[in-house]
Amino acid sequence: MRAVIHAVILSGGSGTRLWPASRRALPKQLLALAGGEPLLTAAVRRGRDVAATVTIVTAASQVEATRAIAGDATVIAEPVGRNTAAAIGLAAATLAARDPDAIMVVLPADQHVRDGVALSRALNSLIAAVERDDSIGTVGIKPTRAETGFGYLEIGAVTDGVVPVVRFVEKPDKATAERYVASGRFAWNAGMFVMSARRALAELDANVPATGKAVRAIAGGADAAALYPTLPSISIDHAVMEKAANVVTITVDAGWDDVGSWAAMPAVRGVDATGNTTDGPVIVLGGTGNIVMSDDATMIATVGVSNLVVVKAGDAILVIDKDRAQDVREVVDALVARGLARYL
Amino acid sequence: MRAVIHAVILSGGSGTRLWPASRRALPKQLLALAGGEPLLTAAVRRGRDVAATVTIVTAASQVEATRAIAGDATVIAEPVGRNTAAAIGLAAATLAARDPDAIMVVLPADQHVRDGVALSRALNSLIAAVERDDSIGTVGIKPTRAETGFGYLEIGAVTDGVVPVVRFVEKPDKATAERYVASGRFAWNAGMFVMSARRALAELDANVPATGKAVRAIAGGADAAALYPTLPSISIDHAVMEKAANVVTITVDAGWDDVGSWAAMPAVRGVDATGNTTDGPVIVLGGTGNIVMSDDATMIATVGVSNLVVVKAGDAILVIDKDRAQDVREVVDALVARGLARYL
Repeated sequence: MRAVIHAVILSGGSGTRLWPASRRALPKQLLALAGGEPLLTAAVRRGRDVAATVTIVTAASQVEATRAIAGDATVIAEPVGRNTAAAIGLAAATLAARDPDAIMVVLPADQHVRDGVALSRALNSLIAAVERDDSIGTVGIKPTRAETGFGYLEIGAVTDGVVPVVRFVEKPDKATAERYVASGRFAWNAGMFVMSARRALAELDANVPATGKAVRAIAGGADAAALYPTLPSISIDHAVMEKAANVVTITVDAGWDDVGSWAAMPAVRGVDATGNTTDGPVIVLGGTGNIVMSDDATMIATVGVSNLVVVKAGDAILVIDKDRAQDVREVVDALVARGLARYL
Repeated sequence: MRAVIHAVILSGGSGTRLWPASRRALPKQLLALAGGEPLLTAAVRRGRDVAATVTIVTAASQVEATRAIAGDATVIAEPVGRNTAAAIGLAAATLAARDPDAIMVVLPADQHVRDGVALSRALNSLIAAVERDDSIGTVGIKPTRAETGFGYLEIGAVTDGVVPVVRFVEKPDKATAERYVASGRFAWNAGMFVMSARRALAELDANVPATGKAVRAIAGGADAAALYPTLPSISIDHAVMEKAANVVTITVDAGWDDVGSWAAMPAVRGVDATGNTTDGPVIVLGGTGNIVMSDDATMIATVGVSNLVVVKAGDAILVIDKDRAQDVREVVDALVARGLARYL
């Protein structure tokens, strides 16, 4: 009998890297950053494409907003955020309690995938591998630039099939990233994993035993609000992937982006004939490379500026050099420091 | 018996050079661009400082908003704008009908003057000269930069007293402006004039007779809505000043600016320790020379940008290179061309 495939969407992010659109109460996965639908909605659909059930792990504060767009997906609330090892563990223990042979397809909620068919094909190949020998599958993304903001997977070669991962590597510096991309033996680590719930729990027991024990207890009825906050905050990459045996990958060219900053918008939303990326009532005169977005009827007009991010969302406006898009964090810090956290 | 002095405030401007703060329905003279009070309110106060009565000439569409801040000033409505010769003529004819010996102090409504005492002193010197020999007085502003956006007055020398104007010169090119300023024999033409109503009407009769005749008829009860639109649209400088005999000036250093574009804001509102000019809830990180203004609780955060104008006013946001601040006109044109005139 084939195992049942369960999609697990990790949706707990509370970041403000896309401030002012993303807020503490409205993180990026709940935003329609790619136009049309929230990123989470698209992630749920990608899950349904390959799985029989969908489970969303999210922050308690986001449960209501998540349920509103989750359809018939199961929503698991984390009392606090404890990074991906705990979140995947909680999903694994919850699923395993009902289906000990469950296979999980773990998908982050805050990514953009242009070619869902290519991704489904890759995930199905990994599912087949995991069913065959209880390996751990991880999706590799064919790198299109020497990105320093992502982790990489070192593999023997970029092929069309499932191959072993030689090692996980952290976000590299620019020179290293360029070497990786030129070599043809590295893929971006997209944070999408396929593994059995049983193996996930066994790996946690071996590497972060407190987490393995706690998530089983919570799935058995223990008080999550008391137990979960005590867990270490560690990513599944650090906790498990970097150490685990028999990790495999398949490299896919799916138009993937993690929508990590405003600078990702041209890739996600496209670029118009003038070289600008716009949304809403916007007029861009005499400039190129801009990202100009208005979330309501507020007109934004720019004249003679290039490579700027200009975003109006809710009660705030951000103007930032596109090359510094990661530094939105500085705004967040400044707002906190000046007693203006109500804008977060 | 001394003549009665009447201030005439020219407030008909409907420009959108300070869009999005200034709109068709809310021109810049009705805005508190210098902080605290509308420019018109300050102009009325300057009028009261030297005159016994204040008359405001404004567009029919602005009468209501003007009355609301005009106090006990008389408001004359122009059915349409016909430039300063017609506006001054209308005021002169209206005043002369009640006071044939009226002396007018003509002040634009949309300027900023830091040192009102110095300006009053200069105006009183011109009033004395006009009373003495029915000359026409024009205020000269000591130039502080080689501005190409203003007209200039050529005078024998910049002295503390009232001196003849050699000639009026149009807006010069940069090299000419630099020569003017270096020579010490030129002052900015501020568009502030002192003249008797009788002489104003005589000059109009001589130079633009249709205007002289029409404004007298309107003051006598004729239908302004029918007559006024037929008048030539011509400035008092072109129509009268450039040709008139016995024009005198006094040069004053009064911290004057015509608030002609957003680039004037640092001079008008000051500059903070980081070199930026801000208003409202604004955070400027790692940049200088910016003008960042929000007209409500909307936060504007800028990161790593310099010499930008970022203005949120009502339902619009402008982002423009400070050196191109005059090109707001292009936005206005684009809004009209794209059927978005509701933002004007």
